[in-house]
Amino acid sequence: MTQIHADNLTAYEAEFGRLELDPRAQDLLFREARTANTFSDEPVTDEQVETIYDLVKWAPTSMNNQPLRIVLVRSPEARARLVDLMFEGNRPKTETAPLVAILAADVDFHEELPSQFPHFPGARDLFAADEAARESAAKLNAALQIGYFTMGVRAAGLAAGPMTGVDLAGVDREFFPDGRHRALVVMNIGKAGENAWFDRLPRLAYDEVATAV
Amino acid sequence: MTQIHADNLTAYEAEFGRLELDPRAQDLLFREARTANTFSDEPVTDEQVETIYDLVKWAPTSMNNQPLRIVLVRSPEARARLVDLMFEGNRPKTETAPLVAILAADVDFHEELPSQFPHFPGARDLFAADEAARESAAKLNAALQIGYFTMGVRAAGLAAGPMTGVDLAGVDREFFPDGRHRALVVMNIGKAGENAWFDRLPRLAYDEVATAV
Repeated sequence: MTQIHADNLTAYEAEFGRLELDPRAQDLLFREARTANTFSDEPVTDEQVETIYDLVKWAPTSMNNQPLRIVLVRSPEARARLVDLMFEGNRPKTETAPLVAILAADVDFHEELPSQFPHFPGARDLFAADEAARESAAKLNAALQIGYFTMGVRAAGLAAGPMTGVDLAGVDREFFPDGRHRALVVMNIGKAGENAWFDRLPRLAYDEVATAV
Repeated sequence: MTQIHADNLTAYEAEFGRLELDPRAQDLLFREARTANTFSDEPVTDEQVETIYDLVKWAPTSMNNQPLRIVLVRSPEARARLVDLMFEGNRPKTETAPLVAILAADVDFHEELPSQFPHFPGARDLFAADEAARESAAKLNAALQIGYFTMGVRAAGLAAGPMTGVDLAGVDREFFPDGRHRALVVMNIGKAGENAWFDRLPRLAYDEVATAV
């Protein structure tokens, strides 16, 4: 990635000014934000998470499905149970992050459709009749919502470290004994600490991912 | 949602200033952005899509997996084939949107891991040995990337209309004859037209989705 200095605004605007979103907001959400490997001691409050949720809840899902569920792992006992389920490389971060959240899909999200998608009264029964389709919709839409939530954490000036290196079936058993949720991601959240960044990993080029037909 | 007028900046800042992201950027990406039901005639160029991708590609996925593939449905013939696969309610929008894109997961994303995740040389073989885990990782990470891409479309001042009301297996057969891709979402993209908005649908409250343990 080209290194851009904010004091060289002419070149900066020329390169990133083609989007309506302010270039500094682009940096905050995408270009300068990184997955932190260390965190400061500053706590992340419930109020901060609520502010994040109240912003990102407006982003779109299919049929206004809202399967995302957020479990804030606050007690030392719960944190220890979760750390045991993380793959080894993810344990130190999960032990030390100011906040760890389990992001899961509620397979029974369809129960809320009568209030959340009222102009299609048959939506709940449609999903009730097909559990495989429901689980698939729950996972897809919860993952979209996790993408939005990640942007919201960054919008709050915090680093978001989404991880899938974890025994997800174990998380379901430990944290969702009702059997109706599927953990998808464990996320560390906090202000970045010292030496928080690894080198930036590469990304695929546009012509490697996009085609026209 | 509280109606906020931009000329009443004191109340506005008080309500939305708790995030580091500028309140106007919050509006652009989340609060004022909506799923458009009509579009203007203004085209969406390949350059715009490339600018969007070059921003959102930096957002995080697990192990830097990058399964998202974008098919821009440009030719009238391809558009007609896709419209035939949409559920009836989504056909008019899909016929008239300036740009329609198929967003899919490449199940063989692991072939790129040697260049994209070079510090873990065993990553490709790990995924090569377990096709079910690979398909699951492809779908999860592509869905995260679709969430980021949606934000990028909005960052470009365009409306993004993600749809899953489509015969996705049919899309796979028609547009991905290699059998190695899974279509997840069809997205209409363009400047919003007249009467583009339905009433805003409700969202679940924070305490309906979040718990602490």
